[in-house]
Amino acid sequence: MKKPVNIREKFQLFDAYWTPKILGEVNDSYVKIFKAKGEFVWHKHDREDEFFLVIKGTLHIKLRDGEITLNEGEFFIVPQGVEHLPYAPEEAHVLLIEPKEVLNTGDVSSEKTVENPEVI
Amino acid sequence: MKKPVNIREKFQLFDAYWTPKILGEVNDSYVKIFKAKGEFVWHKHDREDEFFLVIKGTLHIKLRDGEITLNEGEFFIVPQGVEHLPYAPEEAHVLLIEPKEVLNTGDVSSEKTVENPEVI
Repeated sequence: MKKPVNIREKFQLFDAYWTPKILGEVNDSYVKIFKAKGEFVWHKHDREDEFFLVIKGTLHIKLRDGEITLNEGEFFIVPQGVEHLPYAPEEAHVLLIEPKEVLNTGDVSSEKTVENPEVI
Repeated sequence: MKKPVNIREKFQLFDAYWTPKILGEVNDSYVKIFKAKGEFVWHKHDREDEFFLVIKGTLHIKLRDGEITLNEGEFFIVPQGVEHLPYAPEEAHVLLIEPKEVLNTGDVSSEKTVENPEVI
């Protein structure tokens, strides 16, 4: 059935941090959400840009030449090839749009790597 | 300079309805916003899906076989080839992500067609 997706309701369906969930497909990309708390890992995606939109809380993204602070209702696009380290002192909820082939930890293998995100 | 984009602030920069503005580029797509009020035109995009996220208000999307109602914080992806008619009885603010080649009125030429959306 064709239905709208309520983003905030989807965040109630899981608890784990840094574990992307797929909400939909648009062209060659997935629409995903994840909960952030603490620090992720430095990584990059050689061929894909990533769109980060904060739905709740504050997400910081360290870059090698600076840092981005994203509050609710703000987005940032990490360009392909740019190393980045997302972190969040307090829990933050984030919507992500990125090509389907993107692995969350990019060029790095980590205990935070999620090979096959769940569709919710 | 690398900066986050505050979506609500961008909506303060223009008034016209159904006039998409470009906020950024992600892979082969643009991130756009538009203000909706009244009725748009029936149209489709033969090869592109469109991601609609409501930032403020309510956007309705008529389809040939039903209707979607999107409130704040809700999104819907109109699949390629699907005829749709967006409308909004009251002003609504919408974020849109779609491939760069997409024309707002798709396969239809209308006084609402915007050939070259402005970057803001």
